[in-house]
Amino acid sequence: MKKLYGNAIVGQSGGPTAAINATLCGVVRGVLSQMGEGACIEKLYGMRNGIEGLMDRRTVCLSDFFDCEEKLKLLEQTPAAALGSCRKKLPNPDSTDEKDIAFYEKLFAILEEYNIRYFFYIGGNDSMDTVAKMSRWAEKCGYEMRVMGVPKTIDNDLPTTDHTPGFGSAAKFIATVMQEIICDCAVYTTKAVTIVEIMGRDAGWLTASSAIGRVVDGRAPDLVYLPERSFDMEQFFARIEEKFREHPNLVVAVSEGLQFADGRYVGEGQQSGVADAFGHKYLSGTGKALEFAIKERFGCKVRSVELNLPQRCAGHLLSRTDIEESVSIGKKAVEAAIDGVSGEVMIFVRSSTAPYVCEISHEKVTKIANQTKYVPDEFINETADNVTDDCCNYLLPLIVGECDVIYNNGLPKHIIL
Amino acid sequence: MKKLYGNAIVGQSGGPTAAINATLCGVVRGVLSQMGEGACIEKLYGMRNGIEGLMDRRTVCLSDFFDCEEKLKLLEQTPAAALGSCRKKLPNPDSTDEKDIAFYEKLFAILEEYNIRYFFYIGGNDSMDTVAKMSRWAEKCGYEMRVMGVPKTIDNDLPTTDHTPGFGSAAKFIATVMQEIICDCAVYTTKAVTIVEIMGRDAGWLTASSAIGRVVDGRAPDLVYLPERSFDMEQFFARIEEKFREHPNLVVAVSEGLQFADGRYVGEGQQSGVADAFGHKYLSGTGKALEFAIKERFGCKVRSVELNLPQRCAGHLLSRTDIEESVSIGKKAVEAAIDGVSGEVMIFVRSSTAPYVCEISHEKVTKIANQTKYVPDEFINETADNVTDDCCNYLLPLIVGECDVIYNNGLPKHIIL
Repeated sequence: MKKLYGNAIVGQSGGPTAAINATLCGVVRGVLSQMGEGACIEKLYGMRNGIEGLMDRRTVCLSDFFDCEEKLKLLEQTPAAALGSCRKKLPNPDSTDEKDIAFYEKLFAILEEYNIRYFFYIGGNDSMDTVAKMSRWAEKCGYEMRVMGVPKTIDNDLPTTDHTPGFGSAAKFIATVMQEIICDCAVYTTKAVTIVEIMGRDAGWLTASSAIGRVVDGRAPDLVYLPERSFDMEQFFARIEEKFREHPNLVVAVSEGLQFADGRYVGEGQQSGVADAFGHKYLSGTGKALEFAIKERFGCKVRSVELNLPQRCAGHLLSRTDIEESVSIGKKAVEAAIDGVSGEVMIFVRSSTAPYVCEISHEKVTKIANQTKYVPDEFINETADNVTDDCCNYLLPLIVGECDVIYNNGLPKHIIL
Repeated sequence: MKKLYGNAIVGQSGGPTAAINATLCGVVRGVLSQMGEGACIEKLYGMRNGIEGLMDRRTVCLSDFFDCEEKLKLLEQTPAAALGSCRKKLPNPDSTDEKDIAFYEKLFAILEEYNIRYFFYIGGNDSMDTVAKMSRWAEKCGYEMRVMGVPKTIDNDLPTTDHTPGFGSAAKFIATVMQEIICDCAVYTTKAVTIVEIMGRDAGWLTASSAIGRVVDGRAPDLVYLPERSFDMEQFFARIEEKFREHPNLVVAVSEGLQFADGRYVGEGQQSGVADAFGHKYLSGTGKALEFAIKERFGCKVRSVELNLPQRCAGHLLSRTDIEESVSIGKKAVEAAIDGVSGEVMIFVRSSTAPYVCEISHEKVTKIANQTKYVPDEFINETADNVTDDCCNYLLPLIVGECDVIYNNGLPKHIIL
């Protein structure tokens, strides 16, 4: 493959995670390590707020900024996209619409201005769509540039890759907090139900992670409901009644995306006819909806906990496996691009679960864009109210290991770009 | 002071914290360290679910159970009350009601059965009431026993003591998660408000802690509302408008206990006329109420995050200062009781903030029971929408330092008693 000389640029896109900066760090490390005599990449720029910022020439020279190991270490432990993010959907590169053509012409003029020959985009599904389109336009107009996607999403719902960077840390936070909530709920002897609502609108990977403790120390939520199965309120009540016969402090993990068989969201169910002082309809959330339903049916103490944003930004509790893999996949993306790969997305390929062996490869970006990977049937139990041990064992290696987070005066240190 | 020989018992009561087991560990360490020739305390029992469990003779021999340092270390990092808790209010020991007298007679008969001469109770306000009453009955009936209270509460709202065991770890979790949420919210360029609802119905100590980052690295919520000041919606809107002129991603910390000038809870305000499919009135919570109000007024993106249970049970992120102090105060309670102190509660006395110097003492339990310590005026700014730097500096030493949490296969190890 012909060597390509010039500069590189990297962007972050889509929802933030606790590991997306670790991947950014990997790209920086990849570029820095090839520097010197005969380097293909001279400078690495970062685009602020993804493609959106690039259109306004809002960039930062990362290869200049990262001049010491400490800064790189801090970037690895800083949650959320340090370069900022965006949610821009690019036009069809084969469109004949003048506005669409003008968009690409402006974008590629800016790239040429910076002499960008390597383009790295870290993001989820939509971002891989961007990679595919950038790659297509470059090819069409004959602009020599290698375009690489690096996946990230806490949802773990991208196909082709075994799992996604960022998922392991989110899963570790959820599994850990779940053990702590179980401790908290066990202190009283009165009947009580605690509903824990977990992120994941379509795929139940994060909710499934709440059960990992079962294969570690035997503690896990009593019931686990994933969006892959439709939710039945009467069956749910029956299971709660059964579980109450075993012990008084029930903990139930539910996905925010739970739906009834007719397609209504469980959270949305609460909405009908309800409006607040401002006339708003309430979308109470799945946890709240189930809290009210159980209170109504059983009259016992019920509370709901929405784990919310900390699931995706708890930089103080990172999975070492996730962070190391997230750095590696960014670094490998640089190596692959220098070797001539383009229009592809980096992926994880797991060859063994025990012991855990996982390698990094790449795949055509079209195989990953705009598709969703659900929790497979064999990971969900027959009564659709828990995950199987196989599921927990599959997830476990992704949360193993801790990072030595650097603190300053009691608070984790973050880097601001 | 005459030496008193016999056994000891310890209980936990009230809402759990991440440090209440560290104090339990301190009591165990205190008893173990005086063992040997001439020991006053022979055995240390734990009562399950506080006084309630003791009435059913549900106990565990802690001095037998804790036979190695590893178990003690695990107890220190296990969140929530390992012995279980209760919320029992004891009858008036001077009551002439037969039922009340029968209660105390049964309770003290059980204590005599176990030959309990040292009684330690770890808890909040109500638990100190229990200590006072137990002490009074023992005195009245001439039962020789030293009764000591050891405070705990994440709310930090007990008088006399500088701060409470458990508060520092809750404050560290809140301050840390706040920095992470600020990172998360900064990634987009569109106008958005994030409301973070923090525990503390009456006192605003925990909400104030969300601002500690300001004196560490300059990052803190834009606005901070404590329950010590009445909340005005129009003033709030005006401040949001001002802040939007500075930057687009606003983060607001609010106490769950915020009230309007007329005494209505801000969360309750949303309740009027609102009922769900089951006819329930909604108590949406302060965060949700403000989320809807801002959405109505500004039409921008708004979300609310309730930090919820993890505030009090995040054993994976403990303040080393808090845990060390929590252990010490438990140990000192044992020493004080052996020295003859009774009917008192252990307290922290701070003699200096920078450098932080804090000693452990004890005080008549009647001075602490049934009273609330609010955030003082000098810690709240004039416009009542933030805390002062003095407040942050006062809180800072309580969150300093991290604990080396022991993990097993990716999850923190907890001990089950």
